[in-house]
Amino acid sequence: MGLIDSLTQRSRFRESAAVRTLSLCRGLISERGEISGSKLAAQTLEAYALLPDAEAERFLTLLSEEFSPDEARVWAAAQSYHANPNSATLTTLQHSIEPPRQELFRRLNMAPGGTAMLVRLRRRLLSGLDAHPAWASVDADLLHLFRSWFNRGFLVLQRIDWHTPAAVLERLIEYEAVHQIQGWHDLRRRLEGDRRCYGFFHPALPGDPLIFIEAALTRGLPSHVQMLLDPGSKVTSPQQADHAVFYSITNCQLGLRGVSFGNFLIKQVAEDLGREFPNLRTFLTLSPVPGFRDWLQTRVEHGLSVSAQLRAVINSPLGPPDVPAAIETELLTLCAGYLLHAKRSNRAPVDAVARFHLANGARLERINWMGDSSRTGMQRSFGLTANYVYRLRELEENHEAYAREFRIVAASSLKRLGARAQRLRRAFV
Amino acid sequence: MGLIDSLTQRSRFRESAAVRTLSLCRGLISERGEISGSKLAAQTLEAYALLPDAEAERFLTLLSEEFSPDEARVWAAAQSYHANPNSATLTTLQHSIEPPRQELFRRLNMAPGGTAMLVRLRRRLLSGLDAHPAWASVDADLLHLFRSWFNRGFLVLQRIDWHTPAAVLERLIEYEAVHQIQGWHDLRRRLEGDRRCYGFFHPALPGDPLIFIEAALTRGLPSHVQMLLDPGSKVTSPQQADHAVFYSITNCQLGLRGVSFGNFLIKQVAEDLGREFPNLRTFLTLSPVPGFRDWLQTRVEHGLSVSAQLRAVINSPLGPPDVPAAIETELLTLCAGYLLHAKRSNRAPVDAVARFHLANGARLERINWMGDSSRTGMQRSFGLTANYVYRLRELEENHEAYAREFRIVAASSLKRLGARAQRLRRAFV
Amino acid sequence: MGLIDSLTQRSRFRESAAVRTLSLCRGLISERGEISGSKLAAQTLEAYALLPDAEAERFLTLLSEEFSPDEARVWAAAQSYHANPNSATLTTLQHSIEPPRQELFRRLNMAPGGTAMLVRLRRRLLSGLDAHPAWASVDADLLHLFRSWFNRGFLVLQRIDWHTPAAVLERLIEYEAVHQIQGWHDLRRRLEGDRRCYGFFHPALPGDPLIFIEAALTRGLPSHVQMLLDPGSKVTSPQQADHAVFYSITNCQLGLRGVSFGNFLIKQVAEDLGREFPNLRTFLTLSPVPGFRDWLQTRVEHGLSVSAQLRAVINSPLGPPDVPAAIETELLTLCAGYLLHAKRSNRAPVDAVARFHLANGARLERINWMGDSSRTGMQRSFGLTANYVYRLRELEENHEAYAREFRIVAASSLKRLGARAQRLRRAFV
Amino acid sequence: MGLIDSLTQRSRFRESAAVRTLSLCRGLISERGEISGSKLAAQTLEAYALLPDAEAERFLTLLSEEFSPDEARVWAAAQSYHANPNSATLTTLQHSIEPPRQELFRRLNMAPGGTAMLVRLRRRLLSGLDAHPAWASVDADLLHLFRSWFNRGFLVLQRIDWHTPAAVLERLIEYEAVHQIQGWHDLRRRLEGDRRCYGFFHPALPGDPLIFIEAALTRGLPSHVQMLLDPGSKVTSPQQADHAVFYSITNCQLGLRGVSFGNFLIKQVAEDLGREFPNLRTFLTLSPVPGFRDWLQTRVEHGLSVSAQLRAVINSPLGPPDVPAAIETELLTLCAGYLLHAKRSNRAPVDAVARFHLANGARLERINWMGDSSRTGMQRSFGLTANYVYRLRELEENHEAYAREFRIVAASSLKRLGARAQRLRRAFV
Repeated sequence: MGLIDSLTQRSRFRESAAVRTLSLCRGLISERGEISGSKLAAQTLEAYALLPDAEAERFLTLLSEEFSPDEARVWAAAQSYHANPNSATLTTLQHSIEPPRQELFRRLNMAPGGTAMLVRLRRRLLSGLDAHPAWASVDADLLHLFRSWFNRGFLVLQRIDWHTPAAVLERLIEYEAVHQIQGWHDLRRRLEGDRRCYGFFHPALPGDPLIFIEAALTRGLPSHVQMLLDPGSKVTSPQQADHAVFYSITNCQLGLRGVSFGNFLIKQVAEDLGREFPNLRTFLTLSPVPGFRDWLQTRVEHGLSVSAQLRAVINSPLGPPDVPAAIETELLTLCAGYLLHAKRSNRAPVDAVARFHLANGARLERINWMGDSSRTGMQRSFGLTANYVYRLRELEENHEAYAREFRIVAASSLKRLGARAQRLRRAFV
Repeated sequence: MGLIDSLTQRSRFRESAAVRTLSLCRGLISERGEISGSKLAAQTLEAYALLPDAEAERFLTLLSEEFSPDEARVWAAAQSYHANPNSATLTTLQHSIEPPRQELFRRLNMAPGGTAMLVRLRRRLLSGLDAHPAWASVDADLLHLFRSWFNRGFLVLQRIDWHTPAAVLERLIEYEAVHQIQGWHDLRRRLEGDRRCYGFFHPALPGDPLIFIEAALTRGLPSHVQMLLDPGSKVTSPQQADHAVFYSITNCQLGLRGVSFGNFLIKQVAEDLGREFPNLRTFLTLSPVPGFRDWLQTRVEHGLSVSAQLRAVINSPLGPPDVPAAIETELLTLCAGYLLHAKRSNRAPVDAVARFHLANGARLERINWMGDSSRTGMQRSFGLTANYVYRLRELEENHEAYAREFRIVAASSLKRLGARAQRLRRAFV
Repeated sequence: MGLIDSLTQRSRFRESAAVRTLSLCRGLISERGEISGSKLAAQTLEAYALLPDAEAERFLTLLSEEFSPDEARVWAAAQSYHANPNSATLTTLQHSIEPPRQELFRRLNMAPGGTAMLVRLRRRLLSGLDAHPAWASVDADLLHLFRSWFNRGFLVLQRIDWHTPAAVLERLIEYEAVHQIQGWHDLRRRLEGDRRCYGFFHPALPGDPLIFIEAALTRGLPSHVQMLLDPGSKVTSPQQADHAVFYSITNCQLGLRGVSFGNFLIKQVAEDLGREFPNLRTFLTLSPVPGFRDWLQTRVEHGLSVSAQLRAVINSPLGPPDVPAAIETELLTLCAGYLLHAKRSNRAPVDAVARFHLANGARLERINWMGDSSRTGMQRSFGLTANYVYRLRELEENHEAYAREFRIVAASSLKRLGARAQRLRRAFV
Repeated sequence: MGLIDSLTQRSRFRESAAVRTLSLCRGLISERGEISGSKLAAQTLEAYALLPDAEAERFLTLLSEEFSPDEARVWAAAQSYHANPNSATLTTLQHSIEPPRQELFRRLNMAPGGTAMLVRLRRRLLSGLDAHPAWASVDADLLHLFRSWFNRGFLVLQRIDWHTPAAVLERLIEYEAVHQIQGWHDLRRRLEGDRRCYGFFHPALPGDPLIFIEAALTRGLPSHVQMLLDPGSKVTSPQQADHAVFYSITNCQLGLRGVSFGNFLIKQVAEDLGREFPNLRTFLTLSPVPGFRDWLQTRVEHGLSVSAQLRAVINSPLGPPDVPAAIETELLTLCAGYLLHAKRSNRAPVDAVARFHLANGARLERINWMGDSSRTGMQRSFGLTANYVYRLRELEENHEAYAREFRIVAASSLKRLGARAQRLRRAFV
């Protein structure tokens, strides 16, 4: 009797679905499982996919309990390495400490569609990690494998345009997180001749982008993201453009959190566009400032003094408030202070988008008044947006400065604004 | 100044090429290197590729000395895990013990063509491993990565035929190890309608097979491999065939030693052929018995008594000896004994081909007199060949028996022969 | 000076745009034009494409006047052939009678995208043919070429599904004539697993279907086309289906009128589906009866006596009238009469859809009450639809009967209904 | 009973294979045949393909007798057109004069692989045309169709290199007519980085080039074709090249004689190469002078006086004669005279290669002493070769001059040589 049959039969009546799925996992990393290959792997993943939510959670907990390294063996190997640190004792220690779970996941990956299933499994796991701290070890194993599997060297950069299969385009509509795509009409405008969209794809996830970026090729710098998003806007010649404006970058696979592609994608696209359009002079983002309003509200609650007008705006109910031009300078100053001086405990900026671009070596160039007047834009930052410039020759140096000491490279006008804001000291405690 | 320029310039005059290449590696795993991405990786690999042999060896030795784990940090993490074994201490220990070399290789892999270069680097490393035992740690790191990167789930099975690009076919001619391909005319016959050739490819090594297998679809079992190899033989209808004879399987990438694909390939091809040609009843190999003659010669030197005729054959000079039919039974008996009972210290069979197929779960079915009358065939096994049968339903069970206790599944006629041989006891010491 | 330059320059100021375009045509069929190849062709087509409507009409008229055969030469060749009919005199006559326009169109076709432009040119020409009878000769030349160029042997059948590029799918939405596609959501349902869409493509018109057909694979025969069109309907397993219902077939290129593909497409798709799904038993259309209501209204105006209820329905304003079930039998009878006995002067059926399917060799199988309750369906045929069955083995015989004497093959129940209707004689004058 | 069955059965015993094949043709253009589509077409072509040579000839003769226009109908239509020349009478005349054979061929073309079969049919027909003058009408019909079907607008230019499928490369080896390819090793050198090979393909003949051209990208002009053909020659950088030397152009399909692609191919490739390699300055051929030796021999026999040394060379047996350097000037002079002044009765040059390139608008630039020292090269032209330069800006004008009055554009040095030769008047009678 084949391994699959015996595993399936033996367990049909006595055990819960989660336990049965675990039995399949045990079979898969057994001696027999080594040769059974993709069929048993497929069956195991299918069993997992059919688990109701509660059973799936139970299964993840079982996974975190079993397939872990043998403590005694680890300790023996560690002592042996300590006594005699050489290539052989090191390798023994490395093997002893690799959880059998990793081999289990490597074998599950052999199933057709296995990689996609494992990415989905980790998505579920991440969403429940707070409630189940024990899952962290399972997460660590998956992340370790994903970092190898999704190495930049294996990713394929593909342009996405109106000749791309509809099944792929549909995912853009579904995934786009920064500026929601309002259906096919809207999408189509974003794929016209003066727009560019590129994604990273992995050969094992065909048709499913890992990340994608949207750029507009414009003459002059658009002050307002709505100018770019308007589906009815006139298509202009990309040959005349001098700015490449990255107005949206979206990580598509929640299950790949912690595996970073974004910096590679922006750099590569900037290089490719520069070659295709020699007139392009400036590559920059048009980015949200997602945490500004929340941060300011908290600061004000803690005593930061602001103008009455601004206070009124802050306290107005959610929805696009009418921000009076009179407070433009005040808000820009506070926002410069926020981006440059509001820090987390580890001295990194509070703003997540700032952290991403600054870590990539970009330069904070400008803050735009009414840069995003959508409801979302108003709610998160009173309509302010930021431009981060990518100068290919500066990225390494900027990145190093940021990585070593969180030093931020910014335009001097912004630095002056930020310094002024900082004098309102308490804001940045 | 960019990282690449500074690294290149700084080191141009003072250091040997190997040391300069190592400096590039250091730059690549530095903070700056994280963002420099594929360009610095490409430059490093290029510098390595240009190293003369002696410098390349020096570089590998430098690699094995640097980028290793920090012993003190490992020991501290091990103690901490021992004192308090949980997910966090385990992860810390895992991180501490991962050599920075692995991150170095992951970053090198980002260069265009990086994967191919790393595979070639390991080929060189393996060829010098005996002379440089210290390289073992570098090898372990590469093998660890390759096992993840070349997971079966990422391999693509492709049929190879006369419509395949010439650049790929040329590699078959170059790689084929079992029965040399005598140019394009010979190759073409092996790709006709009654032959099948399949290879596993990896997306990062386009056009370069990892392994390929050649099969003949025949009516009846050909007793003689030369019947299959004859470029002038008549092409027959594959629809009529009842046997799929795997007469050659070749691992192409020496640098991937230790990452196994062969079992997956045979199984998958057997399944696919079975679906395409429902008349196929038997899937089996027509395999060499590579170690038989050497083994027998040694045994005879150690006192195994054989017939005078056989002794004459053994002692005849290399080259196709005239093997008299009179010693057929004697040779078949000894060969059965060799395959079934000649063991290495760990109880695995002495014969490498037998080890491969038996570990895959195949069954030793037959030994063929004059199965391969080529010069090579005569020299390695007096012209004997072996058939290993792949029955998909039995593979798991056979594999398990073999993996646990090296139990060999064989036809009963062969077992009888083997038992008779074994009575000549001293042969199998 | 190149031919293009001289043509362009010479004519820039003195002539109308239509005359200038004609000059380019003259250049293109000159000796120089022979070698200038695709560049001059491209320039000529571009000049044509930029003509305002009035100039384009003038250009077509100029085309119909120039580039015609030389009458004297034709007459001489005809006399010579008449006197001495052989291969040589025949060939001379053929050459003399081929309008130079055909060579002009062959040269225009060499431009990149030339074929598409010529198809569009003929579309415009056809739309103005009634107003400009002289254009008929230009039309005849284009039709002659198109019949050669768009030979079935050059067409490629392609399945269209959700993995097809969006640019192609967008054309389906635009072209679909039978049951309008209400956007991407609607389209997606039509491309699910229990639906099939196929198109014929020509290599010179990449991404632009010539014709496409939509089929539903159903268990049982759906009486109502709305069941098939409902975007929210449940997707069922095509493996279980026993009916392939062709519910829409659309000719996409108006400029290819008179070049027929439809019969090839239905036959080919029926064969392919039959191979893929052996459970399919019946291949049939669910077709509109486009001319029924108009015909009936005219007949009634000419004295056909119908029930008061039916008369009320006929006279109700456009829009989905409430057709009382009481007149079902009356309407079905009249419709059977219409399809089977209402004839054009040449004895072909009045109904265009009937002519198409009957000429293909299909069999009129059924008339469905409330088969299409859409506004359009009600307006053209009081909601009635017809099923034409395609039995591959009968097509030739049925076609021949129809082609020779317009004999219609129909289910006997319909024949009985039709005979009853015919007794109301005057209906069919 | 289906048409195919009835045709097959009825005729199995009574008729010759040629007559049976003709019956299938009759069925195919019947009413039934219209709907039977590709199946009957396939069957007809298969029947034709199986005809033994004598039967195939008989079939072609039958084809030339049947399916011709109806003389009486043609004459009536001609009179009617003469009496009243308008669009309608013209169309009627055109229809009456189109042989039903053309419709037959159009229907045959619908079979899978039909186009390839028809091209092969014409190849056979052409090879027997001298012996069977009546076949000319069949030939005229095929040529008429092929000129439409193989319009430049439908051809696809493809680069051929080492990544091209072996099945295509094998055809190059088989087809190459100018400088034979000595197997795969030789071919490979012709596809290296400093060589380019392009072919025109038609979508209906996949993998089978219509024509291909081989170019070498060189620094300086190679005086000797053997330098280009040497498989062991060093590969140089195409970026450094200033000359693109077209050293071979081969029409692959004998059955397409009279449909010209060569001029399009050279022009297109010259344009493409010019874009890819901006350093290329000169595009020229390195061409044989195929008729020179034969012509000279005849001239000498008719009394042209030449030096004793040259006379000896002319009279030496076939095979690479030792041409003494002393007669270099004499031979070059005579060759210039031959290319520039030896004319056919219609005033076109005697030399076929000269006719081709001059008609394309190229310029005769140089004659090379010992340009092709192969046995073939010596035999046809004492080792002389000619360079024809393609200057894109001049092609039209040169072509027109040549087409109108056979005026040849040549380097002035050659013109001087030619004039000197012409003074030996009798040579050029």
